[in-house]
Amino acid sequence: MMRSEDTICAPATAVGGAIAVIRISGTNSLSICEKIFYPSDKSIKLSEQKGYTIVFGEIHSGKEIIDEVLVSVFRLPHSYTGENSAEISCHASPFIVKKILELLITNGAISAKPGEFTQRAFLNGKMDLSQAEAVADIIASKTRSAHNVAMNQMRGGFSSEISRLRTELLHFASLIELELDFGEEDVEFADRNELTNIIIKVKSLTDRLAGSFMLGNAVKNGIPVVIVGKPNSGKSTLLNALLMEEKAIVSEIPGTTRDTIEDTIVIEGIEYRFIDTAGLRETSDVIEKLGIKKTHEKINQASVILLIDEVSDSYESINKRIQTIRKMIGESEKRLIILINKVDQVSEELQHVLADKIDVKEKESLLFISAKKKSGLDDLRKNLSEVIAKEKLNSESVIITNIRHYEALLHVSESLARVMTGLEDQIPEDLIAIDIRQAIHYLGEITGEITTDEILGNIFKNFCIGK
Amino acid sequence: MMRSEDTICAPATAVGGAIAVIRISGTNSLSICEKIFYPSDKSIKLSEQKGYTIVFGEIHSGKEIIDEVLVSVFRLPHSYTGENSAEISCHASPFIVKKILELLITNGAISAKPGEFTQRAFLNGKMDLSQAEAVADIIASKTRSAHNVAMNQMRGGFSSEISRLRTELLHFASLIELELDFGEEDVEFADRNELTNIIIKVKSLTDRLAGSFMLGNAVKNGIPVVIVGKPNSGKSTLLNALLMEEKAIVSEIPGTTRDTIEDTIVIEGIEYRFIDTAGLRETSDVIEKLGIKKTHEKINQASVILLIDEVSDSYESINKRIQTIRKMIGESEKRLIILINKVDQVSEELQHVLADKIDVKEKESLLFISAKKKSGLDDLRKNLSEVIAKEKLNSESVIITNIRHYEALLHVSESLARVMTGLEDQIPEDLIAIDIRQAIHYLGEITGEITTDEILGNIFKNFCIGK
Repeated sequence: MMRSEDTICAPATAVGGAIAVIRISGTNSLSICEKIFYPSDKSIKLSEQKGYTIVFGEIHSGKEIIDEVLVSVFRLPHSYTGENSAEISCHASPFIVKKILELLITNGAISAKPGEFTQRAFLNGKMDLSQAEAVADIIASKTRSAHNVAMNQMRGGFSSEISRLRTELLHFASLIELELDFGEEDVEFADRNELTNIIIKVKSLTDRLAGSFMLGNAVKNGIPVVIVGKPNSGKSTLLNALLMEEKAIVSEIPGTTRDTIEDTIVIEGIEYRFIDTAGLRETSDVIEKLGIKKTHEKINQASVILLIDEVSDSYESINKRIQTIRKMIGESEKRLIILINKVDQVSEELQHVLADKIDVKEKESLLFISAKKKSGLDDLRKNLSEVIAKEKLNSESVIITNIRHYEALLHVSESLARVMTGLEDQIPEDLIAIDIRQAIHYLGEITGEITTDEILGNIFKNFCIGK
Repeated sequence: MMRSEDTICAPATAVGGAIAVIRISGTNSLSICEKIFYPSDKSIKLSEQKGYTIVFGEIHSGKEIIDEVLVSVFRLPHSYTGENSAEISCHASPFIVKKILELLITNGAISAKPGEFTQRAFLNGKMDLSQAEAVADIIASKTRSAHNVAMNQMRGGFSSEISRLRTELLHFASLIELELDFGEEDVEFADRNELTNIIIKVKSLTDRLAGSFMLGNAVKNGIPVVIVGKPNSGKSTLLNALLMEEKAIVSEIPGTTRDTIEDTIVIEGIEYRFIDTAGLRETSDVIEKLGIKKTHEKINQASVILLIDEVSDSYESINKRIQTIRKMIGESEKRLIILINKVDQVSEELQHVLADKIDVKEKESLLFISAKKKSGLDDLRKNLSEVIAKEKLNSESVIITNIRHYEALLHVSESLARVMTGLEDQIPEDLIAIDIRQAIHYLGEITGEITTDEILGNIFKNFCIGK
């Protein structure tokens, strides 16, 4: 297939750190390495070395010694790509990494494209397409739940489900097509009731998978949260209180920079992203001057709205604001959490009186907090964590996180719906067969059993170099 | 020595990239890994695995699968640290790296301090102290010459020279001390002429090494260059012309960010850093408004001064500016390069006339350039490259780049100078012996034959984690 006869090379580690790893894969991996690598033990010949062994030695550029390195040897098919491969572990100097790559290229290797190692693993049958896609998700995953879902997908949990669906459909299709072969004879190999049952079963699985996309997307990309409320109601104090505790935890992760965790918190393994917080960081409530239109835009982007009011507000004014936000939310699935702030200023009795007067609908929550005193924040976190139905999130569950899969599943579902209508209306078998074949096609696109260069190109261009 | 009985772990690669490597070293490395690592081939027992082999398998946290990884096994003494070691190569997700480190620590490992792997390599006799220091230099080296000098040092080129000096001195010291043992008997085992010759020889070597520090420092840290001249003489155009060509070259290096190469150029493997260029980047010549005092400060920080004048200036005014700069340079070793810009505006004949009138001293250069048309820049680069005597910079030469070594060598030289005076003045042997012992002590500090926790602490605290 695509340039698989070439030997590719690329750095597999980021700039910085103590050591760097350069990956080489392709038929000539070891013979190319051998031209620049001199084992310390002169009796060792790299190209005759067994797989899963390491050789210590030097990289030379002519007479110049570039580095002392370790070379890990992998032999086809027992490597990541399924090809002969090597990994050069060198000192993490940009000069050394550049020089070794230059030497490899001078001696016959070519620079790997983004994701080309994983693409070769797919093309060589080491993994299916959804597993290959999961590799990128695993690298990007920041939370435990995102990691678990991606890991499950990489290990084939998702693909096996898809394959099972596809097999059931292929069985159905072959029965129908057998009938077509007999043409005018009016035989019916496929019991129509049995077939309808199978279609219903397959469609309900497809719909369940497609339905998991909302959760999967939340797990993979985080849940967008917006904080709204009138000026000085404590929006920025609340944001800081939530982020501050988080940062104390997250900063223990080695190598994590503040940038990457800015304005996100993780609750029970799910990331919550506070969107459009730039205005909140300023002492003057600039953001509020933008008015209703801006608030509407913010709410449109969010899945959760934190409406913050003060305990000193009249319940009429609070209810009025709730009404306004509710109208903006409309029929969408967004979750409204009403926060009454500065609760330390009144007694519990008065809180109860106020609570009774506030109009809270089902699926909404009302919480009394003090952002300044950090009280009520645990309740808030608990409410946030209940925004998504995490009971589906155990390690065995199959969850869709990829919009490409989601769209393919919707196509499958549509095709199957047409099959069902067709069966009811007793339309000709050949038309039914077309819809079934379409469903089979889209299922095959997910696992890569059916694929095009365009699909592959789109998938792997988003990978990093060296993966 | 310090907590060597513990097993340490740390990430060895930077955040980002496709794969991450976690290092583990210490007696229990393999037994700790075995508790969390499950080989795919169930017949493999990690703790019984031979050195220089790789095992594929999974990291588990209880029932949860954290990642599919490769574990490289190293057995004492054939490892970087000289201890039992392992390297876990996993997907480069911050979540996975953090989780694996947590699991290692839960199972008995401790977090490595900066440079602790290299420190252990030193303590276990795998390298001497100057070699250990070279490891950090190798990782930091950005240019070919910096890399070569560090590589030479890591491979012991520098240490072997020091050891040779030290052996000669020890021989001298033992002869003198033998005389002391005989006390009143007035014997002279050491031929005074021969001893003087040895001391002269050792001192000249020491001084040569100390003298290479200027070059070594330039190689390691780059050569600071400043551009001065009157407003609108073309300073910023010149800077941009030099940097632009450079950036086109450097941006090909994979993973190099613009930040790291800002305002530096590399000529024949040596880095030139343009200092204080903030003002030059602005269109209005803000920097010049700061006047003479500021210019003096800039020149103080630089090793090379580029004075830029215009071809339309009168030679009197040019000579006056040269005079001013020359006064600021004073007796220091700074190099002055006089540039006459906008040379495209006059004929070559007139350039010759102007050249004759300009007062250029030895060790100064006069160049006609056009920053805008990019002419004369090759000459400028050639002149810059001649600022340091690179004939000393062949790959065999021993060059000092470390201020700790430089200071120790100065102490050695001082002690030896006292020995020589002592020999001339025929002062008592026991006093001479003290100075010799002092020289031996300082030479030992460089290689680490003599060391303290404080010295080690200062050296390794500047290493990165995982090295």
